[in-house]
Amino acid sequence: MPEKFWDDFQVGDTFRSMAITMTEAHLVAWAGLTMDFYPLHMDQEYAARSPFQRRIAHGPLTFAMAVGLMGMNGGAKDSVIAWLGVDNMRIPAPVFIGDTIKLKAEVTELRPTKKAEQGFCKMRYEVTNQQEQVVMVFDMNFLMHKRVEALG
Amino acid sequence: MPEKFWDDFQVGDTFRSMAITMTEAHLVAWAGLTMDFYPLHMDQEYAARSPFQRRIAHGPLTFAMAVGLMGMNGGAKDSVIAWLGVDNMRIPAPVFIGDTIKLKAEVTELRPTKKAEQGFCKMRYEVTNQQEQVVMVFDMNFLMHKRVEALG
Amino acid sequence: MPEKFWDDFQVGDTFRSMAITMTEAHLVAWAGLTMDFYPLHMDQEYAARSPFQRRIAHGPLTFAMAVGLMGMNGGAKDSVIAWLGVDNMRIPAPVFIGDTIKLKAEVTELRPTKKAEQGFCKMRYEVTNQQEQVVMVFDMNFLMHKRVEALG
Amino acid sequence: MPEKFWDDFQVGDTFRSMAITMTEAHLVAWAGLTMDFYPLHMDQEYAARSPFQRRIAHGPLTFAMAVGLMGMNGGAKDSVIAWLGVDNMRIPAPVFIGDTIKLKAEVTELRPTKKAEQGFCKMRYEVTNQQEQVVMVFDMNFLMHKRVEALG
Amino acid sequence: MPEKFWDDFQVGDTFRSMAITMTEAHLVAWAGLTMDFYPLHMDQEYAARSPFQRRIAHGPLTFAMAVGLMGMNGGAKDSVIAWLGVDNMRIPAPVFIGDTIKLKAEVTELRPTKKAEQGFCKMRYEVTNQQEQVVMVFDMNFLMHKRVEALG
Amino acid sequence: MPEKFWDDFQVGDTFRSMAITMTEAHLVAWAGLTMDFYPLHMDQEYAARSPFQRRIAHGPLTFAMAVGLMGMNGGAKDSVIAWLGVDNMRIPAPVFIGDTIKLKAEVTELRPTKKAEQGFCKMRYEVTNQQEQVVMVFDMNFLMHKRVEALG
Repeated sequence: MPEKFWDDFQVGDTFRSMAITMTEAHLVAWAGLTMDFYPLHMDQEYAARSPFQRRIAHGPLTFAMAVGLMGMNGGAKDSVIAWLGVDNMRIPAPVFIGDTIKLKAEVTELRPTKKAEQGFCKMRYEVTNQQEQVVMVFDMNFLMHKRVEALG
Repeated sequence: MPEKFWDDFQVGDTFRSMAITMTEAHLVAWAGLTMDFYPLHMDQEYAARSPFQRRIAHGPLTFAMAVGLMGMNGGAKDSVIAWLGVDNMRIPAPVFIGDTIKLKAEVTELRPTKKAEQGFCKMRYEVTNQQEQVVMVFDMNFLMHKRVEALG
Repeated sequence: MPEKFWDDFQVGDTFRSMAITMTEAHLVAWAGLTMDFYPLHMDQEYAARSPFQRRIAHGPLTFAMAVGLMGMNGGAKDSVIAWLGVDNMRIPAPVFIGDTIKLKAEVTELRPTKKAEQGFCKMRYEVTNQQEQVVMVFDMNFLMHKRVEALG
Repeated sequence: MPEKFWDDFQVGDTFRSMAITMTEAHLVAWAGLTMDFYPLHMDQEYAARSPFQRRIAHGPLTFAMAVGLMGMNGGAKDSVIAWLGVDNMRIPAPVFIGDTIKLKAEVTELRPTKKAEQGFCKMRYEVTNQQEQVVMVFDMNFLMHKRVEALG
Repeated sequence: MPEKFWDDFQVGDTFRSMAITMTEAHLVAWAGLTMDFYPLHMDQEYAARSPFQRRIAHGPLTFAMAVGLMGMNGGAKDSVIAWLGVDNMRIPAPVFIGDTIKLKAEVTELRPTKKAEQGFCKMRYEVTNQQEQVVMVFDMNFLMHKRVEALG
Repeated sequence: MPEKFWDDFQVGDTFRSMAITMTEAHLVAWAGLTMDFYPLHMDQEYAARSPFQRRIAHGPLTFAMAVGLMGMNGGAKDSVIAWLGVDNMRIPAPVFIGDTIKLKAEVTELRPTKKAEQGFCKMRYEVTNQQEQVVMVFDMNFLMHKRVEALG
């Protein structure tokens, strides 16, 4: 049984995660796991000549770490039945090797679904670096357990 | 200089990737890299009691592999200036350990931007398993290099 | 500032972790990281002829996962100043590939130290598999933050 | 058949290992494998504000590498029937990223067991860094093969 | 069906790969995967006293990356039935952590085999660093698909 | 100072390594590290339709493990000044996931070089699986330390 149900969330509830430093080792492992060896991430000669002037983290790596950081927080973990996907992503700034990122997630929408035991929850994820600069934002859609013991 | 420019794409252009088998090793590496140890992916006793009856791949792992498979294809690689994010994701079926996934990507929107040397391109990514079952779909938004030599 | 101080723990307090399945991928990664390629873990022909009849997880891997599982639990995380080491380890049963392990930790000793702002805490860690069989026990010694605001 | 038996060891026998440099890649892989993302190891902003002023290696990583280095040495490998655990660990100094660690192990106790074909062996492991500073010490307890051909 | 057959290659055909930066993370992962912890690659104190004065990449790692880079290029991928091995390797200069390597491969020999549907192809692989210095050369021998539709 | 010099080797000297089981985790890590995602190794649907009927290990992975196994043996480690490359590789049989491989290496040629303190050594490496079937053979060329104390 979840510790926290859809019913326990309110629009505006906010969760803050621990932080993690993005390292070269993360980029190398990510490239190997996801087959994304794009030179902006893996070739420092190429990256030096790019507008960024050095290698940047893969965008989906920042996204995946944000998802993981939310889980580490423990905030909504047991409440989720299924992840319904991601929307409205924006990437206002790059994440460089050595940057330290953390997550703020805010409940932005809660609505019942057709099934009495399930609720829909939308959260706005915002990833910032060590200078409080926003590096990624996106909406996450979840199906959550609804409290049903009082239904009978 | 890119081999292919925004100008060379047409709505309806389709790219098909090679395939890759999702293994337990992928899930373990993914969890460690992204800090997502949710028991549906990492605890086979828990997963056995879930509706899926066995461990399933992390959704963002399927997403990240789709991004990587597109790069392996080489289809649009040099053309891209920046990834503008992802939208409209749906996850109609789970990916199990041992499933083999592949990607079809289709150009669904092309429009000029304010900058003469850049074009916007939206692609629909569709990931299928070895039984041609769709396991994930999403839209990817890219900023691409526009051919500019004829501008002057 | 920690959420929980040495003063908030009591002998007998118990923490239970999530569980994780020990996979072949864990053993391969562990061997590579720690340089321990002992054939009982890495050579299934050798292991088949051993009393265990199949490969077993490295003992220190079980230990390290127990430490990690405690952190995932969040129980005492911010309270710890330093890890003072491990004692009295016993390994009553092997962990096989495919076993799912989890941790119970119990506070067994609390005593002040010479420094007013620090307290000593001993916990008994017990790792069990999916059949509730104990596979490892050990004592962990921590130095913890003591609540000091009332001192003045 | 082991190359070396319990009977061949003497109290005071000493083994010295090769050395290995602790890298950021080791810390990232360790965290992912053992689920220990404590910010002192993974968040360089947090670590910069700690008494250590930079990230330090996970203590159990140093322990696990010491175990692996002993195996690389080959000293007592085939002689061991089972690892009986670890005791009396002390961690006098941190291991930083870039430090190079090596192991000295010394036999400190040898005694027969109830079984004629097995002997008990305790070794003192001492891990030092490139400045010959001791960073970790602990006792390892082993059950070893005893030479039995003369028993009949 | 391959996109390109043995018949489509000519002696002198040349393929150029993307580039990749050799990182410390590559060396650590390589050592763990291949059990090669030789101190010239893994111990920076030892390497500092060597003629190279710092850690160098494992030679077989450079070789394996060259093989991988050729595949990323896509040049001859589908054409190959089997890899027949490597010959005549020379290693004129070391690869250091932080060097960026790329591959040029040239077809140096093509001959029919006894089987009508197979052809032999030898290619000269040359790996260079970011200063266009050759760091490794070797011959690769392949068995390739021959176009057979016109045979009947 | 090396424990063993060029002068201590004789043609016909043979070294035998420990064994290791080739796992799916090795193939996944190898592909990611070396960028070789060829479907015969990574796509079990493709491999099932191939003459091998299942995924096979990358040839260079077998080669690299043989090199590593030789080092684990300790046989010639300190004696080597430089690896001069590999020759005459043949791959008589595939290595499947689950196979356990080991190495026999034999000194096949020893000759002085122009430098008094160096000797050339060629070794024949033979990799076999758990059924004593040869899966790979190749020649390794080394430059070794020659004993020089008697020179004066």
